[in-house]
Amino acid sequence: MSMAETPRLWVKIDLGSAGQVGPGKIALLRGIAEKRSIAAAARDMKMSYRRAWLLIDELNGIFGQPVLVTHIGGKGHGGAELTSFGQRLIDAFGLIQQRADHAAREELAALAAEIQPRP
Amino acid sequence: MSMAETPRLWVKIDLGSAGQVGPGKIALLRGIAEKRSIAAAARDMKMSYRRAWLLIDELNGIFGQPVLVTHIGGKGHGGAELTSFGQRLIDAFGLIQQRADHAAREELAALAAEIQPRP
Repeated sequence: MSMAETPRLWVKIDLGSAGQVGPGKIALLRGIAEKRSIAAAARDMKMSYRRAWLLIDELNGIFGQPVLVTHIGGKGHGGAELTSFGQRLIDAFGLIQQRADHAAREELAALAAEIQPRP
Repeated sequence: MSMAETPRLWVKIDLGSAGQVGPGKIALLRGIAEKRSIAAAARDMKMSYRRAWLLIDELNGIFGQPVLVTHIGGKGHGGAELTSFGQRLIDAFGLIQQRADHAAREELAALAAEIQPRP
Protein backbone atom coordinates (compact mmCIF):
# COMPACT_ATOMS: atom_id res chain seq x y z
CA MET A 1 0.00 0.00 0.00
CA SER A 2 1.16 3.54 -0.55
CA MET A 3 1.93 5.71 2.46
CA ALA A 4 -1.30 7.62 1.84
CA GLU A 5 -3.46 4.54 2.38
CA THR A 6 -4.55 3.72 5.91
CA PRO A 7 -4.93 0.05 6.86
CA ARG A 8 -8.47 -1.04 7.61
CA LEU A 9 -9.74 -3.59 10.04
CA TRP A 10 -12.44 -6.05 8.95
CA VAL A 11 -14.30 -7.82 11.71
CA LYS A 12 -16.27 -11.03 11.96
CA ILE A 13 -18.45 -11.78 14.98
CA ASP A 14 -18.15 -15.34 16.19
CA LEU A 15 -21.26 -16.28 18.15
CA GLY A 16 -19.92 -19.71 19.02
CA SER A 17 -22.11 -22.65 18.06
CA ALA A 18 -24.82 -20.24 16.83
CA GLY A 19 -22.71 -19.10 13.87
CA GLN A 20 -20.80 -16.14 12.55
CA VAL A 21 -21.73 -12.70 11.26
CA GLY A 22 -19.27 -11.02 8.93
CA PRO A 23 -19.08 -8.21 6.36
CA GLY A 24 -20.68 -10.30 3.57
CA LYS A 25 -23.97 -11.00 5.35
CA ILE A 26 -24.15 -7.41 6.58
CA ALA A 27 -23.49 -6.00 3.10
CA LEU A 28 -26.34 -8.16 1.81
CA LEU A 29 -28.69 -6.83 4.52
CA ARG A 30 -27.67 -3.27 3.67
CA GLY A 31 -28.37 -3.96 0.00
CA ILE A 32 -31.80 -5.39 0.78
CA ALA A 33 -32.62 -2.40 3.00
CA GLU A 34 -31.71 -0.10 0.12
CA LYS A 35 -33.30 -2.01 -2.77
CA ARG A 36 -36.24 -3.46 -0.83
CA SER A 37 -35.65 -6.61 -2.86
CA ILE A 38 -33.54 -9.71 -2.22
CA ALA A 39 -33.15 -10.35 -5.96
CA ALA A 40 -31.91 -6.82 -6.68
CA ALA A 41 -29.51 -6.83 -3.71
CA ALA A 42 -28.14 -10.23 -4.73
CA ARG A 43 -27.67 -9.03 -8.33
CA ASP A 44 -25.75 -5.96 -7.12
CA MET A 45 -23.39 -8.25 -5.19
CA LYS A 46 -23.08 -10.67 -8.14
CA MET A 47 -24.53 -13.35 -5.90
CA SER A 48 -27.19 -15.89 -6.86
CA TYR A 49 -30.70 -15.44 -5.45
CA ARG A 50 -30.34 -18.86 -3.83
CA ARG A 51 -27.04 -17.92 -2.16
CA ALA A 52 -28.60 -14.70 -0.83
CA TRP A 53 -31.52 -16.67 0.63
CA LEU A 54 -29.16 -19.14 2.29
CA LEU A 55 -27.27 -16.30 3.98
CA ILE A 56 -30.51 -14.68 5.17
CA ASP A 57 -31.73 -18.05 6.40
CA GLU A 58 -28.46 -18.51 8.27
CA LEU A 59 -28.90 -15.13 9.99
CA ASN A 60 -32.51 -15.97 10.92
CA GLY A 61 -31.24 -19.25 12.36
CA ILE A 62 -28.38 -17.69 14.32
CA PHE A 63 -30.63 -15.25 16.15
CA GLY A 64 -33.84 -17.29 16.20
CA GLN A 65 -35.73 -14.33 14.78
CA PRO A 66 -36.24 -13.00 11.25
CA VAL A 67 -34.04 -10.25 9.85
CA LEU A 68 -36.54 -9.47 7.10
CA VAL A 69 -40.11 -9.95 5.91
CA THR A 70 -41.07 -10.58 2.29
CA HIS A 71 -44.14 -9.46 0.40
CA ILE A 72 -45.61 -11.81 -2.17
CA GLY A 73 -46.95 -10.34 -5.40
CA GLY A 74 -45.89 -7.56 -7.66
CA LYS A 75 -43.30 -8.15 -10.32
CA GLY A 76 -40.42 -10.61 -10.06
CA HIS A 77 -39.65 -12.03 -6.64
CA GLY A 78 -41.81 -9.55 -4.69
CA GLY A 79 -40.46 -7.07 -2.16
CA ALA A 80 -38.49 -7.49 1.05
CA GLU A 81 -38.13 -5.27 4.08
CA LEU A 82 -35.83 -5.55 7.08
CA THR A 83 -37.41 -6.14 10.46
CA SER A 84 -36.44 -3.76 13.25
CA PHE A 85 -34.09 -6.50 14.44
CA GLY A 86 -32.49 -6.69 10.98
CA GLN A 87 -31.88 -2.95 11.13
CA ARG A 88 -30.46 -3.22 14.67
CA LEU A 89 -28.11 -5.92 13.42
CA ILE A 90 -26.73 -3.63 10.68
CA ASP A 91 -26.31 -0.78 13.19
CA ALA A 92 -24.64 -3.00 15.81
CA PHE A 93 -22.22 -4.45 13.26
CA GLY A 94 -21.30 -0.97 12.02
CA LEU A 95 -20.65 0.20 15.57
CA ILE A 96 -18.56 -2.87 16.42
CA GLN A 97 -16.54 -2.43 13.21
CA GLN A 98 -15.96 1.24 14.01
CA ARG A 99 -14.96 0.70 17.65
CA ALA A 100 -12.61 -2.14 16.75
CA ASP A 101 -10.93 -0.16 13.99
CA HIS A 102 -10.59 2.90 16.22
CA ALA A 103 -9.11 0.92 19.13
CA ALA A 104 -6.44 -0.62 16.88
CA ARG A 105 -5.56 2.53 14.91
CA GLU A 106 -2.10 2.98 16.45
CA GLU A 107 -1.07 -0.68 15.99
CA LEU A 108 -2.45 -0.72 12.44
CA ALA A 109 -0.36 2.33 11.52
CA ALA A 110 2.74 0.72 13.07
CA LEU A 111 2.14 -2.43 11.04
CA ALA A 112 1.65 -0.47 7.82
CA ALA A 113 4.96 1.26 8.53
CA GLU A 114 6.66 -2.17 8.36
CA ILE A 115 5.88 -2.38 4.65
CA GLN A 116 9.19 -1.95 2.82
CA PRO A 117 9.13 0.36 -0.20
CA ARG A 118 9.43 -1.47 -3.53
CA PRO A 119 12.75 -0.83 -5.28
CA MET B 1 -24.84 -19.96 21.70
CA SER B 2 -25.60 -20.63 25.34
CA MET B 3 -25.69 -17.73 27.78
CA ALA B 4 -22.33 -18.86 29.16
CA GLU B 5 -20.55 -18.35 25.82
CA THR B 6 -19.15 -14.92 25.10
CA PRO B 7 -19.11 -13.76 21.48
CA ARG B 8 -15.66 -13.34 19.99
CA LEU B 9 -14.39 -10.92 17.44
CA TRP B 10 -12.17 -12.13 14.59
CA VAL B 11 -10.21 -9.48 12.77
CA LYS B 12 -8.62 -9.23 9.36
CA ILE B 13 -6.18 -6.45 8.52
CA ASP B 14 -6.74 -4.94 5.10
CA LEU B 15 -3.52 -3.31 3.87
CA GLY B 16 -5.15 -2.05 0.71
CA SER B 17 -3.46 -3.02 -2.53
CA ALA B 18 -0.65 -4.75 -0.57
CA GLY B 19 -2.99 -7.50 0.65
CA GLN B 20 -4.69 -8.81 3.77
CA VAL B 21 -3.52 -10.45 6.98
CA GLY B 22 -6.04 -12.59 8.82
CA PRO B 23 -6.23 -15.32 11.48
CA GLY B 24 -5.27 -18.11 9.04
CA LYS B 25 -1.89 -16.69 8.04
CA ILE B 26 -1.12 -15.77 11.64
CA ALA B 27 -2.05 -19.24 12.90
CA LEU B 28 0.34 -20.70 10.33
CA LEU B 29 3.15 -18.40 11.50
CA ARG B 30 2.45 -19.39 15.12
CA GLY B 31 2.59 -23.06 14.14
CA ILE B 32 5.90 -22.60 12.33
CA ALA B 33 7.35 -20.73 15.32
CA GLU B 34 6.34 -23.63 17.54
CA LYS B 35 7.31 -26.55 15.26
CA ARG B 36 10.28 -24.86 13.57
CA SER B 37 9.06 -26.58 10.41
CA ILE B 38 6.69 -25.45 7.65
CA ALA B 39 5.76 -29.06 6.84
CA ALA B 40 4.87 -29.88 10.46
CA ALA B 41 2.90 -26.65 10.94
CA ALA B 42 0.99 -27.25 7.67
CA ARG B 43 0.20 -30.84 8.72
CA ASP B 44 -1.17 -29.63 12.07
CA MET B 45 -3.50 -27.27 10.21
CA LYS B 46 -4.46 -29.97 7.69
CA MET B 47 -3.07 -27.73 4.98
CA SER B 48 -0.89 -28.81 2.07
CA TYR B 49 2.80 -27.86 2.15
CA ARG B 50 2.24 -25.98 -1.09
CA ARG B 51 -0.67 -23.99 0.35
CA ALA B 52 1.43 -23.10 3.42
CA TRP B 53 4.25 -21.87 1.19
CA LEU B 54 1.84 -19.75 -0.86
CA LEU B 55 0.55 -18.07 2.30
CA ILE B 56 4.09 -17.39 3.54
CA ASP B 57 5.05 -16.07 0.12
CA GLU B 58 2.02 -13.80 0.20
CA LEU B 59 3.09 -12.40 3.59
CA ASN B 60 6.65 -11.85 2.35
CA GLY B 61 5.21 -10.04 -0.66
CA ILE B 62 2.82 -7.87 1.37
CA PHE B 63 5.57 -6.50 3.61
CA GLY B 64 8.49 -6.69 1.18
CA GLN B 65 10.53 -8.55 3.79
CA PRO B 66 10.72 -12.21 4.84
CA VAL B 67 8.69 -13.53 7.77
CA LEU B 68 10.91 -16.60 8.05
CA VAL B 69 14.20 -18.19 7.06
CA THR B 70 14.59 -21.85 6.11
CA HIS B 71 17.48 -24.21 6.73
CA ILE B 72 18.29 -26.78 4.08
CA GLY B 73 19.35 -30.24 5.19
CA GLY B 74 18.34 -32.60 7.94
CA LYS B 75 15.32 -34.83 7.53
CA GLY B 76 12.25 -34.00 5.48
CA HIS B 77 11.84 -30.42 4.35
CA GLY B 78 14.50 -28.94 6.65
CA GLY B 79 13.81 -26.44 9.41
CA ALA B 80 12.27 -22.99 9.43
CA GLU B 81 12.56 -20.12 11.84
CA LEU B 82 10.67 -16.84 12.02
CA THR B 83 12.59 -13.64 11.44
CA SER B 84 12.29 -10.94 14.07
CA PHE B 85 9.80 -9.28 11.73
CA GLY B 86 7.75 -12.50 11.56
CA GLN B 87 7.61 -12.54 15.35
CA ARG B 88 6.64 -8.85 15.46
CA LEU B 89 3.84 -9.58 13.00
CA ILE B 90 2.41 -12.29 15.28
CA ASP B 91 2.65 -9.98 18.30
CA ALA B 92 1.09 -7.01 16.47
CA PHE B 93 -1.79 -9.13 15.20
CA GLY B 94 -2.44 -10.50 18.69
CA LEU B 95 -2.50 -7.00 20.14
CA ILE B 96 -4.80 -5.69 17.40
CA GLN B 97 -7.15 -8.65 17.91
CA GLN B 98 -7.18 -8.06 21.67
CA ARG B 99 -7.76 -4.31 21.47
CA ALA B 100 -10.53 -4.70 18.91
CA ASP B 101 -12.30 -7.38 20.93
CA HIS B 102 -12.00 -5.36 24.11
CA ALA B 103 -13.32 -2.16 22.52
CA ALA B 104 -16.42 -3.95 21.21
CA ARG B 105 -17.15 -6.04 24.32
CA GLU B 106 -20.31 -4.14 25.28
CA GLU B 107 -21.83 -4.19 21.79
CA LEU B 108 -20.93 -7.87 21.36
CA ALA B 109 -22.73 -8.76 24.58
CA ALA B 110 -25.77 -6.73 23.48
CA LEU B 111 -25.83 -8.58 20.17
CA ALA B 112 -25.51 -11.98 21.87
CA ALA B 113 -28.49 -11.01 24.05
CA GLU B 114 -30.59 -10.73 20.85
CA ILE B 115 -30.31 -14.48 20.33
CA GLN B 116 -33.75 -15.94 21.07
CA PRO B 117 -33.79 -19.10 23.19
CA ARG B 118 -34.74 -22.21 21.22
CA PRO B 119 -38.15 -23.63 22.18
